[in-house]
Amino acid sequence: MAKNEALTPKGTRDFLPGEMVKRNYIFKIIRGVFERFGYIPIETPAMEQVSTLTGKYGEEGDRLLFRILNSGDFLAGISDDEILERNVNKLKSSISDKGLRYDLTVPFARFVVQHLNEITFPFKRYQIQPVWRADRPQKGRYREFFQCDVDVIASNSLLNEAEQIQIIDEIFKKLGIKILIRINNRKILSGVAEAIGEADKVIPITIAIDKLDKIGAHKVNEELAVKGISGKAIRELQPILGLAGSVEEKLNELENKILLHSRIGRKGVDEMKKMFGYLNTFDLEVDPVFDLTLARGLDYYTGTIIEANSTEMKIGSLCGGGRYDDLTGVFGLKDVSGVGVSFGADRIYDVMEKMDKFPEETTSTTTLMFVNFGEKEEIHCLSLLAEIRKSGIKAELFPDKVKIKKQMNYANKKNVEFVALVGEDEMKNGLITLKNMKTGVQSQITLDELIEEIS
Amino acid sequence: MAKNEALTPKGTRDFLPGEMVKRNYIFKIIRGVFERFGYIPIETPAMEQVSTLTGKYGEEGDRLLFRILNSGDFLAGISDDEILERNVNKLKSSISDKGLRYDLTVPFARFVVQHLNEITFPFKRYQIQPVWRADRPQKGRYREFFQCDVDVIASNSLLNEAEQIQIIDEIFKKLGIKILIRINNRKILSGVAEAIGEADKVIPITIAIDKLDKIGAHKVNEELAVKGISGKAIRELQPILGLAGSVEEKLNELENKILLHSRIGRKGVDEMKKMFGYLNTFDLEVDPVFDLTLARGLDYYTGTIIEANSTEMKIGSLCGGGRYDDLTGVFGLKDVSGVGVSFGADRIYDVMEKMDKFPEETTSTTTLMFVNFGEKEEIHCLSLLAEIRKSGIKAELFPDKVKIKKQMNYANKKNVEFVALVGEDEMKNGLITLKNMKTGVQSQITLDELIEEIS
Repeated sequence: MAKNEALTPKGTRDFLPGEMVKRNYIFKIIRGVFERFGYIPIETPAMEQVSTLTGKYGEEGDRLLFRILNSGDFLAGISDDEILERNVNKLKSSISDKGLRYDLTVPFARFVVQHLNEITFPFKRYQIQPVWRADRPQKGRYREFFQCDVDVIASNSLLNEAEQIQIIDEIFKKLGIKILIRINNRKILSGVAEAIGEADKVIPITIAIDKLDKIGAHKVNEELAVKGISGKAIRELQPILGLAGSVEEKLNELENKILLHSRIGRKGVDEMKKMFGYLNTFDLEVDPVFDLTLARGLDYYTGTIIEANSTEMKIGSLCGGGRYDDLTGVFGLKDVSGVGVSFGADRIYDVMEKMDKFPEETTSTTTLMFVNFGEKEEIHCLSLLAEIRKSGIKAELFPDKVKIKKQMNYANKKNVEFVALVGEDEMKNGLITLKNMKTGVQSQITLDELIEEIS
Repeated sequence: MAKNEALTPKGTRDFLPGEMVKRNYIFKIIRGVFERFGYIPIETPAMEQVSTLTGKYGEEGDRLLFRILNSGDFLAGISDDEILERNVNKLKSSISDKGLRYDLTVPFARFVVQHLNEITFPFKRYQIQPVWRADRPQKGRYREFFQCDVDVIASNSLLNEAEQIQIIDEIFKKLGIKILIRINNRKILSGVAEAIGEADKVIPITIAIDKLDKIGAHKVNEELAVKGISGKAIRELQPILGLAGSVEEKLNELENKILLHSRIGRKGVDEMKKMFGYLNTFDLEVDPVFDLTLARGLDYYTGTIIEANSTEMKIGSLCGGGRYDDLTGVFGLKDVSGVGVSFGADRIYDVMEKMDKFPEETTSTTTLMFVNFGEKEEIHCLSLLAEIRKSGIKAELFPDKVKIKKQMNYANKKNVEFVALVGEDEMKNGLITLKNMKTGVQSQITLDELIEEIS
């Protein structure tokens, strides 16, 4: 066995052919649904200017950015004193002006502003690309992972969020993954903060509530107290978060009681009513749930927030997103509202693999292999192969004349569905011996019959 | 207009929807041909350990690697003296242990060794991913660009190179790009070096000959002299490089005269004869040319070398590759021979764009748009949309109720093929007014008729 020092970097991984076929199956379904809803693809470069990325993901995000070392003499222009100060945060800004993208949302905002005159608004785009985060690697969390984002920008219509929920519903239905879709609205959360007398603390409240699932009510309340929320406000918050009943009942309770005196809160309730109005006309597989405890961490959401989780397997959210009113503002384009959701392809893969959701066709790669019997047979098989490939069948001739057992072993391991044997006899009578690798059944047929059988 | 400081980094670019559709068309054709020849996909992470990448691409390659700054305190463990030495080459090794992949070949070699026990040999893989080089950006040369690689590893059969030439021929035929395919063999070049008495200088000779196209014979000869090749050897080289006639004639001249006393040279001639034997049985669009001046710069080739260029547009090679006998050796796996070619998707795109080779279907994105007439109509259109999307048609409802002119303008700019208008009248009589945006023809039809017309 070879001794190998060269491995993928920590937290990253290769995809083998068997995994690729399955991943491509997921991407194909996601892409197909996005496109049927009128979204069109874009791609952005892996690298962005550091200034584009920093300050958008909070302090932790800035820390987790992968930065590219400047080319050439990266220390030029930096004084000895500056270096010896060893202030790595300051220093890294001087020696690296590019970073790897951390998500697809910020590059999309940059894209919109950069290409303002080339884009038709409202702009419905999707984007399927890897992102990179210098997170501590752990089971199910990678430093390189794929996001599948779908956003509309420059449209205020709540039809957009309703359709994106429909997209979520349809994608997971097609993938065969059972999910729970939870919906909330940041304006309602702002209203709640107002209602409990802590209007200026809506962000720490949101961040704390966001952890309810993970750490439980007790710890959330502790965090709220640490963040300076009064005991009275925390007590008042509890029944609100525990609000029960149908979507309509909850919304009415908020509108007529809890948020009666909060303008922004009632605006949120209006938005929810309008959106559930659309949702009710759809034929959804899963009825979305209105969950007041759904908060989603990121600062930039301003309206609807959405999250989908597997109901069969405990793993982080498979999909999430929401409405943002000023994403492009930091890049100089004010007052453009957008809404989008992001699918985590790697977690979806993990759920499908674990729950055995991949259909059988995602195991096969090449359909047909010709056994190599030697020079004369090779030439004969190559002309057959040309015809077979013309019909779109994935087919190969084993490249070396080695023992048949070895060739069959290769076909087996590669999950080839059919093996063709063409020796002297077959060449004489113009037939092909075709073996179905699954059933083991073997038959002598003509080229036309073979193409028909396999197609 | 917004003032925007945030742009893509120098040498990188975004892909707009119109470009994406065209790029995906190219990838689809390339992927389709690869798969029909029995190649299966893999992907590797964007980052590799720096030690995996360095020393594989020559000095220039090492310099052009994009390196990732280590996370956390990247200066920890580096003494003040070391820093103040300002030896940036040494220093960058200490502060960055990951780099972005420079091509797909070296990561593939690393992949093979890392996954030795999960792979079935001969391993026929393809890989379509971006690579990054810190090159000086210029027209047609980017710092992020896509390679499409197809390789077989652990098979000595010359059928592999013959089939890869067939793959090149088929891909460019399908894309409608006219090409010249040139072939040579490194063993023949070694034989030539032997024949002119400079056996130990085969690498500088190869590197110099490689530039013949770009800088001409005079400058190549100058370079050969600088590299220490004797005047006599340079004189003897000239008629060899100018060898004319059919493939057979050239090979015979080499075998029986020029390379008569070079064992390795005659081995190269044998390989060429065997490979052209396969090629002659194929029904190729373009007859490959045997070109003794084709050298291809990279060190690791040991047998056949292949290059394809556009005959319609002056631009670097569109595709190139060859046989290597020891690619995985540096990673501890000796004596594994492979052969592969790489397609440059970005140059192929440039040729197709410039030469107007993209078919018409690659301009459209979404097929059908419903005009938004207001709340009541919206709900009605949404139920029609559900049916239309079920038939796989890409369709959308304009999300906001704005002036019809603005909506039609959107449809026009987005290259939407059909626009559906459903107002009060249409709702009453259960019809849809469908406008063909290209012909301008408008008709009132049922939902079923619409689906049939558009599908």
